[in-house]
Amino acid sequence: MTLPDPAQLDAADPLREFRSRFFIDDPDLIYLDGNSLGRMPLAACEILHRQAEDGWGSRLVRGWNEGWFDLPARLGAKIASLIGAEPDEVVVADSTSVNLFKLAAAALEFQSGRSQIVSDDLNFPSDLYVLQGLAQTAGRKVVMARSPDGIEPGDVEPLIGGETALLTLSHTAFKSGAIRDMAAISAAARSVGALTLWDLSHSVGAVPVDLSGSGIDLAIGCTYKYLSGGPGAPAFLYVRRDLQERLRNPIAGWFGQARPFAFELKYEPASSLRRFQTGTPPILSLAAIEPGVDLVIEGGMDRIREKSMLLTGFLADLWERDLRPLGVALNSPLDAARRGSHISFGHPDGWRVDRALIEDARVIPDFREPDNIRFGLSPLYTTFTEVDEAVRRFRELLEQRTYEKYPPARAEVT
Amino acid sequence: MTLPDPAQLDAADPLREFRSRFFIDDPDLIYLDGNSLGRMPLAACEILHRQAEDGWGSRLVRGWNEGWFDLPARLGAKIASLIGAEPDEVVVADSTSVNLFKLAAAALEFQSGRSQIVSDDLNFPSDLYVLQGLAQTAGRKVVMARSPDGIEPGDVEPLIGGETALLTLSHTAFKSGAIRDMAAISAAARSVGALTLWDLSHSVGAVPVDLSGSGIDLAIGCTYKYLSGGPGAPAFLYVRRDLQERLRNPIAGWFGQARPFAFELKYEPASSLRRFQTGTPPILSLAAIEPGVDLVIEGGMDRIREKSMLLTGFLADLWERDLRPLGVALNSPLDAARRGSHISFGHPDGWRVDRALIEDARVIPDFREPDNIRFGLSPLYTTFTEVDEAVRRFRELLEQRTYEKYPPARAEVT
Repeated sequence: MTLPDPAQLDAADPLREFRSRFFIDDPDLIYLDGNSLGRMPLAACEILHRQAEDGWGSRLVRGWNEGWFDLPARLGAKIASLIGAEPDEVVVADSTSVNLFKLAAAALEFQSGRSQIVSDDLNFPSDLYVLQGLAQTAGRKVVMARSPDGIEPGDVEPLIGGETALLTLSHTAFKSGAIRDMAAISAAARSVGALTLWDLSHSVGAVPVDLSGSGIDLAIGCTYKYLSGGPGAPAFLYVRRDLQERLRNPIAGWFGQARPFAFELKYEPASSLRRFQTGTPPILSLAAIEPGVDLVIEGGMDRIREKSMLLTGFLADLWERDLRPLGVALNSPLDAARRGSHISFGHPDGWRVDRALIEDARVIPDFREPDNIRFGLSPLYTTFTEVDEAVRRFRELLEQRTYEKYPPARAEVT
Repeated sequence: MTLPDPAQLDAADPLREFRSRFFIDDPDLIYLDGNSLGRMPLAACEILHRQAEDGWGSRLVRGWNEGWFDLPARLGAKIASLIGAEPDEVVVADSTSVNLFKLAAAALEFQSGRSQIVSDDLNFPSDLYVLQGLAQTAGRKVVMARSPDGIEPGDVEPLIGGETALLTLSHTAFKSGAIRDMAAISAAARSVGALTLWDLSHSVGAVPVDLSGSGIDLAIGCTYKYLSGGPGAPAFLYVRRDLQERLRNPIAGWFGQARPFAFELKYEPASSLRRFQTGTPPILSLAAIEPGVDLVIEGGMDRIREKSMLLTGFLADLWERDLRPLGVALNSPLDAARRGSHISFGHPDGWRVDRALIEDARVIPDFREPDNIRFGLSPLYTTFTEVDEAVRRFRELLEQRTYEKYPPARAEVT
């Protein structure tokens, strides 16, 4: 198989200049985990310095009146532009899990006569944990579609019916990268009166979504993957405008109060989406989100998706030629249009191979049990040359079996 | 009335060297709002630079194995030492409001046969909002003790009985600064089988508490006031060790899972306090907490409390001599032992006076409806000279009525 020259692909890449906007101190290190933690934009580093010295240090508590209070909504409006939502339909708050809890609990209360939450086994485990905990509290049941092969999602539509209070899925699956058909599934749910909640964590900034056009109700997503918001950066949530005043935030805090600085004794929710904020947001982590979001806006979701498909396509071709013969499986859909911006490779010694990639080959993927090595390709800074070189190093360590010196399994967190 | 010379008080202050450890770029600005947002430790600024460039920038996703994952527990153990708790009884996570929700919901589930939450009207409004929202979800009722004068807390013990699932109060009241007798009230609650949850936000780092010695069950608190953790820095929560495995976190996320990196489909809670973590924590804001906590540990809670009482005592004496004759009320307990580290002054034109203090007099207090001007005195960096000078400027603007040029009320947040 003759593959294109990666240097030529890079030269023809309309996004090639964006790489220089990120902090890269070690060009020999091939970082393919932007789907877990995106690289730091240089401007994020500057914003942190500024928020520390000029903000917290110098302006002190006055910072709340000089931009901090409005920051969750202002960032939300920018993220809205990336996911086909209106500016007043997205806000940044809390973690992805806490946002899922708030929206799912609100949906269950709204759907008081229905007994089931429908999801699937490709959904992110933390989402499933939140749903299980909530189901226990609210006396509901979680029903799950099963993937036939751990790669392609199972058929969820037969599970949706009159008992479905809420349908909630990941748009792009964290492990295989498979993309769900948001519009079709949401239409099926809507036709039986179920609410829909989508986790966009592995899509936002890499895979276009059109929330308004898909007719969905609720969404959540994280900002630290393709948006490069920083480690554990606060997450976002989406509530369709006409639902905002009809849903109740179960965690009622002062940032969701109609008049937070009146310090009234009785809670009255803000009439806007602000009601889905709760406590005081962590400003330093929050402020660091903006530069990455700005870079994605500047790059443009269409160009980003186009390059993402070229990158994963190139990687799939390299796999076919160089890795498949060495026993590496493709645990992602083969069709680029059916997958997000990462590819999972299966290998029986996955954990050891992942170790060797990181420690010896200086390629950073991540590992997902039981045997998945994920290569995340971030269109704003991953180059075709890096992908080519990563596969060369991968092939070499498989041929030389250098991974066998590592322990066969991950040590457990205690 | 002859008052001591503030310069002599400063010279005799055993904590006087600590001020130089904080970022202070404008010595003429008298910052008396450390009870809302504490000043930035110089070391926090350094940690932010390091976490940005060396952490996120350079180590990238490897940071999670190099300290980030354990940071919530490590910081919790340090905070535990300040509040009379064991190292494994405190963890840093989420916001104060989300932590209150988690612990209060867990307590209500544990106390399934009891119908009431008992609190009082001096509790922080956001806490009351969370309790109201939770009571609505869980079909319980919030019963409130009423303060006779808005300064001293009302008598809560008559409200505690066999129907009390949970008693929850602020240890130091956000508005008046009055301190509750934690041990006595908790003993009364315990004697009828009620669980106790204390909000330590206005105490931690300023007023000693002894959680183990007081026999309480649960606590929460923020880190951005006297701990100088940074704007909106993540909060902490305390669960007494023997309760940890008996309570269920209603927001079940992967950071509370027994094996978070196994990505199992079914939630199994960690056996330790880690089960009360939920989503991925915001590392930049989290890391910035440590230097302020370290400074409080180094200063020592006994010396800090001693200086705090001297500071608020000096301010109360100045009020008596200079402000009371000009129509300023003392909205805090007169006895230093009965109040925390801030003093609230009442004035019929409170909002305008607050504006004039900030804009004209360069004194930064904060304002709490309807008429409270709070002066927060932070023992690690507030000087007696500053307190003296702040009162001089306050008196001057009252005498010259310069505050009358400001609008009579706060503009509403919309």
